[in-house]
This record gives sequence, structure tokens and C-alpha cells, in this order.
Amino acid sequence: MNLVLLFPDDFVEDNRVVLRGRRREHIAQVHRAGAGDSLVVGLIDGKAGSGTITRLTPDEVELVVSLDGEPPPALPVTLVVALPRPKVLNRIVAGATSLGVKKIFLVNSWRVEKSYWKSPRLSVENLREQATAGLEQARDTVMPKIELRRLFRPFVEEELPGIAAGTTALVAHPRAAAECPRDLEGAITLAIGPEGGFIDPEIASLERAGFRAVSLGPRILRVETAVAALIARLV
Amino acid sequence: MNLVLLFPDDFVEDNRVVLRGRRREHIAQVHRAGAGDSLVVGLIDGKAGSGTITRLTPDEVELVVSLDGEPPPALPVTLVVALPRPKVLNRIVAGATSLGVKKIFLVNSWRVEKSYWKSPRLSVENLREQATAGLEQARDTVMPKIELRRLFRPFVEEELPGIAAGTTALVAHPRAAAECPRDLEGAITLAIGPEGGFIDPEIASLERAGFRAVSLGPRILRVETAVAALIARLV
Repeated sequence: MNLVLLFPDDFVEDNRVVLRGRRREHIAQVHRAGAGDSLVVGLIDGKAGSGTITRLTPDEVELVVSLDGEPPPALPVTLVVALPRPKVLNRIVAGATSLGVKKIFLVNSWRVEKSYWKSPRLSVENLREQATAGLEQARDTVMPKIELRRLFRPFVEEELPGIAAGTTALVAHPRAAAECPRDLEGAITLAIGPEGGFIDPEIASLERAGFRAVSLGPRILRVETAVAALIARLV
Repeated sequence: MNLVLLFPDDFVEDNRVVLRGRRREHIAQVHRAGAGDSLVVGLIDGKAGSGTITRLTPDEVELVVSLDGEPPPALPVTLVVALPRPKVLNRIVAGATSLGVKKIFLVNSWRVEKSYWKSPRLSVENLREQATAGLEQARDTVMPKIELRRLFRPFVEEELPGIAAGTTALVAHPRAAAECPRDLEGAITLAIGPEGGFIDPEIASLERAGFRAVSLGPRILRVETAVAALIARLV
């Protein structure tokens, strides 16, 4: 936790917050901070700054905060990713959030197992918790929007062309002939398939929606590695 | 497992292998393959190719293999990474291996907790298992060399200058003024600190060893995200 994320409910006065539970534990046990110590803090969807601990008890920690800085710039990247295995989902959401992605669509695909859609990790609460972890890691405050699309074709045919309009729209595809470009200007829509990749008719649908298939080379990467590698190369 | 990695002991004839245990399970249950099916295979530190299943029993699978292809090119990157938390170590070794790194030094640093050096995950067997997972993921066959250096200063002062000689030597440092370069030619030595970063005297030691401190921006990334992002940007 490189930034303690604050929520409106935490404020007991204009510049004073009281935290309990996870954040108190982390401040006491990982930061090993105490009264007088200063921490990086940020208000959800707002400014970043610092907080000085005025009181630490076994139940709560009180900080006086000063919020006058900007969070790091958002990445101009919309991520469209085939719903990964539940075990991997948390890392992908936290990882993409830490990189600065502010819009993530989790979509169906032929190779996504049906059971993945029943995972409790798809709850609004869990997705928000993972995104919070990504923000706290990267000292960001702006929560990404995460949306689920359980039907591939209607999403790709009806909604995605509008999302991708005016952006560089790319789909990562290990068998694509074109090399993934580097250091693009402007907004990007990046689609990443499931383990095993999108099937050919899905690639064709994405191409009709304005996407270009690109490859990072002959290596097949795990989705979480591919997300970080592709984003770092593109922006 | 996008490639079934074969070892000399697996061969019962010049072009015939018998596999048991983990690989048999994976072929039967994840690939759901049977007699007549063909799989991508590769010989450790050797050629890649294909194998056709000739027999699948509850105990073993036999394949006739043809090894005539090259593994994907290695990355010209030597990774020097502060020993991460044991929980994260496996993912970093597998991830860096999948990206094509062939030389990894796990080194001490001020912010590495002493207990990490006692983790059973540092055993030769586990490191090899994680690297194998990375090779199988990326359809590679060439095992990386992974070395442990428990003393920062002797390593950085005596050994690292020789390792970095003739390469572009960079240390990822969130507070560095210089932006991480892109798309370099030639060999790279990349040092990545622990959670919280290298401390200033360590950065100074690395600079004396020929390293330049560079940053990916104001975001602090988890080590596993940083490894993929830095490598993708540099090569």
C-alpha cells in the first residue's frame, strides 16, 4: 500500500479521517507507523497528498490530511479482455489498474469456460477491492470502470465499434503477421484473448469492428504478463 | 502448457518418449488428448517440434516425436532482481522465463527481508520447476540460468561490472529523473529493486558499476508487473 486510499465516509472533519480494519492493520503492521508519522494518502476519485497520524489505537487510526496533489495521469487505454480464470482475474484487474487503465471490459469468448462467469470474484465488491489494491500500489486515486459482457457478438458488433472509434484499436493475437506497434500517440483500445487466444471467427469480428491483429512474437504469454507487456510497449 | 518439455531420460528410443506424472496428467486432463493427437513438444536446451500420441494409459503416455524446429529467440536481457517475497518469486521466475530471459540473478538488498532467503522456494528444484513452467508457457526449450547472491556489495562491486560490460545497464528506480528508454539494440542488463525500491546508497553502487537509473513514471508497480513492462519497453 504505497498510498492510503480515503473515502468520503472516512472524514470526521474537513481534514481529519479515522480508519479502521484493513487500512489500520496495514498502517500499524506493515508500515509500522505511529503517531507523528506521515503517509501518502489520496481521496477516491480526487486529490492525493499526505496524512499525519495523530492517534493510533488497537481499533483505529486518525490522520490529519492535506490533499493538494494530482494523482498520476491516467493511461489513454481501454482494455477489452476475455474473462480469465478466477485465480488470475484478481491479478489482472489489480495489475491493469496499477498501470493506469481506467476502463476494463471483461468479455466472453469461445475459449472462456462457462464456469468462470459464476465465480464470486466477479462481484462488484471483489472487482472494486482488486482495483483498490491497484490504486494503492500505484499511488493513484481514480477508480477504473469495470464492466462485464457475457455475450461476445452483440458486444463486439454493436457496442465495441463505438468504444473503439477514434482510437487505435488492436487485438493481441499470437499468430498475427503484424508486429505490435510501439509508443503510440492518442487513445488505444486493446483487446486480449483468453489462454489459447481468440478463435479465428472472433478475430474476424474484431477486425470488422475496426481492430488490427498484432503480435508480440512467437512466445505465448500468460494473460497477466501480456497485459503489462502490451501496455508498456504501446504507450 | 503450450509445449511439452522433454528431457533425455524420457527417451526410450531415438524418436519415442514415455511420460508419467505431471505431464501425463496435463496431456490427458487439460489437453484432453488421446492416441493419434499431436502436441507441440521440445527437448530441453534443444530443438522444438511435434509429438504424436501412440499410447495413453492411466500411468503413462507414449509419443513419437519429430524435433526439427528452433525455439523462439532468447532475449538479450540479463535480469538482476532483488529477492522478492516467496509468494511472488514463482511468478517472477516463470514470467521472466516466458518472456525469454536466460540469465537471472536474485540478489540481496536493504529492503529484502532476511527471512526471504530461508524460503524453500529458493531450492534448485523449485526454481527449475518455475522456469520449466515459463518455458512450457512460451514454447521455449532453453532453461535460464538462475543464480543467488546473498551479499549485495561484493556482487555489485566485484561481479556485476563484468556482467554489465558491453551492455546497456539500467536500474529501474521510481524516483529517477531519466525516462526508461525504448526499443534498444544489443544486450541489456536490467536491475529491479525490491518493493519500496533500492535505497540511495544501493543506487549509487549500481551507478558506480555502470548502471543508469531510469523510471517508468510516477506509478509504483508490483515487481512482477514491472518486470514485464520494463522488458517489453526495452526490447
